[in-house]
Amino acid sequence: MTLMKTELKVVIIGAGRVGFHLAKRLFEVGIPVSQIFSRQQIKANKLANLIQAEPISDLSKVSKDADLCILAVSDDAITEVAKKLSKILKKDSFLVHTSGATSSAVFEEHFKRYGILYPLQSFSIEKKPDFSNIPICIDSQNPLDLAFLTEIANEIGPKVYYIDDSQRQFLHVSAVFVNNFVNHLYFLGKEILDEEEISMELLKPLIIETANKIIDNDPKAMQTGPAIRGDTTTINAHLELIKNKAEIHKLYQYITKSIQKHHS
Amino acid sequence: MTLMKTELKVVIIGAGRVGFHLAKRLFEVGIPVSQIFSRQQIKANKLANLIQAEPISDLSKVSKDADLCILAVSDDAITEVAKKLSKILKKDSFLVHTSGATSSAVFEEHFKRYGILYPLQSFSIEKKPDFSNIPICIDSQNPLDLAFLTEIANEIGPKVYYIDDSQRQFLHVSAVFVNNFVNHLYFLGKEILDEEEISMELLKPLIIETANKIIDNDPKAMQTGPAIRGDTTTINAHLELIKNKAEIHKLYQYITKSIQKHHS
Repeated sequence: MTLMKTELKVVIIGAGRVGFHLAKRLFEVGIPVSQIFSRQQIKANKLANLIQAEPISDLSKVSKDADLCILAVSDDAITEVAKKLSKILKKDSFLVHTSGATSSAVFEEHFKRYGILYPLQSFSIEKKPDFSNIPICIDSQNPLDLAFLTEIANEIGPKVYYIDDSQRQFLHVSAVFVNNFVNHLYFLGKEILDEEEISMELLKPLIIETANKIIDNDPKAMQTGPAIRGDTTTINAHLELIKNKAEIHKLYQYITKSIQKHHS
Repeated sequence: MTLMKTELKVVIIGAGRVGFHLAKRLFEVGIPVSQIFSRQQIKANKLANLIQAEPISDLSKVSKDADLCILAVSDDAITEVAKKLSKILKKDSFLVHTSGATSSAVFEEHFKRYGILYPLQSFSIEKKPDFSNIPICIDSQNPLDLAFLTEIANEIGPKVYYIDDSQRQFLHVSAVFVNNFVNHLYFLGKEILDEEEISMELLKPLIIETANKIIDNDPKAMQTGPAIRGDTTTINAHLELIKNKAEIHKLYQYITKSIQKHHS
């Protein structure tokens, strides 16, 4: 099968961070996005303008003959949007969503052909993502649909992975640890410095280096610090410094214990 | 005051990661390191060889007329080494240590001139550090010594900060959060994936992007994920997935609560 990509009709539902960057990327690689849906007409117009698509803010206007309908909406909206689309699209339409957290089963009740197109990255509107480096996780029950999705994904970027619903769930919880939770630790680190009027600039090279080390090393081998050394003097000195921040204090103790448990 | 750097006599005590890279950097910028001490003669020889220094493994051989003696030893060894050096060096010798966690007061009992030269980075022996980007935190009670240390630090790199003992303590606890604790979250993320035989490669671009976002943004504004959204459905699904890993489960709940508390 060779993709006649210029003849495809792709519809993107959602003009948030994921919808925005996926739409721009598809346009960039020559896959036409025929329609962009956003509940906010202005948002739809703005994105559609950039990629020569039709902006729509009324779901009933979605093309019935789209080859692929990408739901790039928030997790709590996927089920509802899929249900609405079931009354608009043909039963044999092909739908995917872009979420790490939601099962592909949300489509099952309404459609025969469905799948996942989950780009595993944290997008910002302002920053152009580097798709040459972003894992594109795909899945579909139907081999032909999966083959089609593979071709689309390979156009988006070179790092395409087959990840089923169960794996994707674990991947998502793991992403929460290394992204959401890590960012919270950056925030707490800044909180501690702010009170002492010390600039966060001082920690930035350390933050980058800590992340970069993971590229070529197992995090287990990279663990350093007072917890793994069992350096009780330093641990107690730290706890004393943050004793007035009850909750940061508790988190320090808890993560220290966790490090010691996993490395004992 | 202009530093006649080629006439200086710098002694480095310790050939671990910090001693290794500081010694190489000083040599690189034309500040001669006259002696390298390591308890392991082989380690001293190896490093000394690289930078045309004299290797020693006997503290009593330290030059009495060194302009600067840098203690790049572990926190628990600083006090003992300072005490031993007090019986070898002249009372007016100038000593600094490179630790984020230890007070400069460890020198007080034995020496009149002392300070801190703390490069805030996580070093690896194999990887050449980029000193153009590493904060060099310095301090000394004596204005002349501080001026001298400033000149040395400015040769090492352009990012020189005056950080007193109290600030350095807070900086160090904060560094534990964004380095040691963050690395532990990378480790836990990998633990979750390993059990499902999913490659850590999938998370690496996300890890790098999460760190890079901090360069130009406040971590508070960058917080995303189910915790800050109050997305109980996803949080409960995640907790169900990791329910057999009691301790990771507890940490997930605890950090989630912490995020919700700080962003409410």
